Amino acid sequence: MKVVAIFSGGMDSTAMLYSLVAAGHEVKCIGFDYGQRHRVELDHAERIAAKASADYHTIDLSAVGSAIAGQSSQVNPEVEVPDGHYTEESMKATVVPNRNMIMLSVAVGHAISIDFDAVAYGAHAGDHTIYPDCRQEFVDAMKSVIRICDWKSIELLTPFIDKSKSEIATIGASHGVPFEDTWSCYKGGAKHCGTCGTCVERKEAFALAKLADPTEYL
Amino acid sequence: MKVVAIFSGGMDSTAMLYSLVAAGHEVKCIGFDYGQRHRVELDHAERIAAKASADYHTIDLSAVGSAIAGQSSQVNPEVEVPDGHYTEESMKATVVPNRNMIMLSVAVGHAISIDFDAVAYGAHAGDHTIYPDCRQEFVDAMKSVIRICDWKSIELLTPFIDKSKSEIATIGASHGVPFEDTWSCYKGGAKHCGTCGTCVERKEAFALAKLADPTEYL
Repeated sequence: MKVVAIFSGGMDSTAMLYSLVAAGHEVKCIGFDYGQRHRVELDHAERIAAKASADYHTIDLSAVGSAIAGQSSQVNPEVEVPDGHYTEESMKATVVPNRNMIMLSVAVGHAISIDFDAVAYGAHAGDHTIYPDCRQEFVDAMKSVIRICDWKSIELLTPFIDKSKSEIATIGASHGVPFEDTWSCYKGGAKHCGTCGTCVERKEAFALAKLADPTEYL
Repeated sequence: MKVVAIFSGGMDSTAMLYSLVAAGHEVKCIGFDYGQRHRVELDHAERIAAKASADYHTIDLSAVGSAIAGQSSQVNPEVEVPDGHYTEESMKATVVPNRNMIMLSVAVGHAISIDFDAVAYGAHAGDHTIYPDCRQEFVDAMKSVIRICDWKSIELLTPFIDKSKSEIATIGASHGVPFEDTWSCYKGGAKHCGTCGTCVERKEAFALAKLADPTEYL
């Protein structure tokens, strides 16, 4: 199948990329610059895609970022990134309003435009508590609308929707994912902070999967 | 209700803006620059919104336009805009891949971000034959997903989904829409061409509604 993959350079989308390639799909990766605080992830995305010999490009959505910034710590520089466990209520500050529908809609438009068959994104089970646009019901509704938004039907793949992050780490390891190249931290500094929700989740995933964590934390 | 309206400066979205304002809604208009051939419409949108004392701004989606250009006459400069009646099969060249889902998703993100209640767009019954993302089934599926894409539920308004363009012209006239300020032509020249699908549709709408057509055609 020909698949447009939404690719952020994080653990999940990298494991997804490697899985899709291993399954024999032709994959084209796109990342999005929506003015995210952690936009260093895009450099990681580019580097990983090059290593995996996958096609990658960043789409500039900075004007969209401004329009949706609201009270999100990830696009509004005045809102602080919360520390703590990633399932805590306070983590809702990291939600970017409707981010996934925006990225999916552009990815679908791109897939139609280059005559690809499907779009994939790496939402996983651990996201459900905090991110409304990672829930199974959101995915199901998106699948329905993506099937009929064009005269050509596009499929939505969400291979990790029922997987925990540690299961994703295990899958990624089995495909040789270079985890040291992936980026998670929401603070987007020079190193992973080790204390924000996504750093906590990253550490926990490696620990539960009994994998060495190659990340250098602050 | 507080409504984000997708506003192109055309007859339909202008009639929608005037109707929403007349119904007492607080309306914020957004237009999109996706590198469309007819981007002159955005100047018209700005002018009309100013006249209606409505808030308006253009969101730059030019990078998205490049990613979805494909074989669309409206974003790929190498594909000619077809002439003829707007319900002809040849008009499918004017479809911009997944354009409406992209615009709606950004509008929804913006609505969440500024704590608005709803998003509106002016798809109408005459669009259904050519534009997959103007069909009732697309609208229904979008309503479902927009309701659950965030912890706050957003409503999708499509007041013209079962109206013909001549009915929209009649409604617009009843609200005092300045039709002379609206832009339809897909060719985006100095004047309306009078022969492309949307110019033909525009002429027909005024004729069927028994309204004087204030447009200066080439």
